[in-house]
Amino acid sequence: MAASKILGVLGGMGPAATADFMKKLVELTPAATDQEHLPTIVVNDPTIPDRTLAFAKGNRADVLDAMARSVRRLEAAGADAYAIPCNSAHHWAEDLQQRTRLPIIHIANASIKELLSRPRSGDRVAVMATPVTLASDFYRRKIDAAGFNYLETPNAVTDAQVLPGIRKVKAGDIAGAARLLNDAVDALYTCGADAIMLACTELPIALAQRLARDERLIDTTYALAKACADWRRSGATKAQGNQQSRTESIACSQD
Amino acid sequence: MAASKILGVLGGMGPAATADFMKKLVELTPAATDQEHLPTIVVNDPTIPDRTLAFAKGNRADVLDAMARSVRRLEAAGADAYAIPCNSAHHWAEDLQQRTRLPIIHIANASIKELLSRPRSGDRVAVMATPVTLASDFYRRKIDAAGFNYLETPNAVTDAQVLPGIRKVKAGDIAGAARLLNDAVDALYTCGADAIMLACTELPIALAQRLARDERLIDTTYALAKACADWRRSGATKAQGNQQSRTESIACSQD
Repeated sequence: MAASKILGVLGGMGPAATADFMKKLVELTPAATDQEHLPTIVVNDPTIPDRTLAFAKGNRADVLDAMARSVRRLEAAGADAYAIPCNSAHHWAEDLQQRTRLPIIHIANASIKELLSRPRSGDRVAVMATPVTLASDFYRRKIDAAGFNYLETPNAVTDAQVLPGIRKVKAGDIAGAARLLNDAVDALYTCGADAIMLACTELPIALAQRLARDERLIDTTYALAKACADWRRSGATKAQGNQQSRTESIACSQD
Repeated sequence: MAASKILGVLGGMGPAATADFMKKLVELTPAATDQEHLPTIVVNDPTIPDRTLAFAKGNRADVLDAMARSVRRLEAAGADAYAIPCNSAHHWAEDLQQRTRLPIIHIANASIKELLSRPRSGDRVAVMATPVTLASDFYRRKIDAAGFNYLETPNAVTDAQVLPGIRKVKAGDIAGAARLLNDAVDALYTCGADAIMLACTELPIALAQRLARDERLIDTTYALAKACADWRRSGATKAQGNQQSRTESIACSQD
């Protein structure tokens, strides 16, 4: 393992999403034997405070401190770069980068790259995510910068379908989550979305069946795993910051 | 994470089996939120030499040294005990225990416990595994000690179906593996098996559908995950050695 590049994974947010990420990373690595796979070190700390609750309470330092502890474990264990299979956690990504020498493989950059690789049916991209991710605005900026139009997800969809669906995945109720989240996807298509970012890593777990048949849905877990497999091949490890451009977004026509 | 017990996972043998183990560990943990899950540190080193090849060549020190390096990383990162989601690797488990202060949660002990919890249709237990695991004999000893009769798996089944099936899982060909491994299961039932240990962590990946409907099959990955969830609750962390009893086994009636 000393001679290979080692990917660090800051996991546990949530644990099912981390396991899903690990599975997708294995599937995306062309390999005939174990030895051709990417060495990884996963620090899976589910005790990191809930990102949505911390954000709502304005108690953000605890999350950052807990994530910084995990990153230090990854550094100590020998990781060369790291990924976080949790979109909400990326609200703290820039601050976290001030505390580590490890470059981050950023989930939103990976997801925009995946969006650009898909057949393009139109310009309007909606984002299904937690309120933390939506408020943090990094998806909006990157979607704008990539030449798409950001379609606002109605708060009612986020509050009544997306967030309860995420909670159900975290509690292990995948079938219950799928019902809510399929309704949310339908609502966003009705709003005019041409593509939808599943920008919370619990979402692809519940929407696995729909993902298999709908190319307009972007699985951010899959996109991150692909970026990590590419990182290994490319050798590029420079840190990626958020782009700062911003344009106006489109309101949902149903609002 | 400092206040919680941390499970170490010596992974990468193979990477898909480690991801499968992580998924089962999450599913077996009763939890309504992320924070109720078990903190884990996974050192996923797929560059550990192939266990079957090393055993065949008599080159066993390299495997032990590589596993010892992973265990040291787990120790350094703060693990309180560790599990190895690879049965073949347990051939080296006693030697590995000489190099670490961490107790091991042994996959065969976990699997025997699972076997004992199932409805019992008869005494004869067959083991599907690599030649390393079969030669190492720890399953035979534990099956005997638990009051079952060890049914010899014909070499032809291991060589022509089980081992090629395992290789196909490692190469990502799950459908191809399932065809071979379902035939192996059928052959062992024809031999008179009342229960079958899937004693290689690639096997449950390919046999997932059959596992869902056949209680005579023991998924050793699932059993290990259950033992790890139990370890967290129980607090018991003393090292578990192999039992030394041994009785005669039964030959397959088709040999």
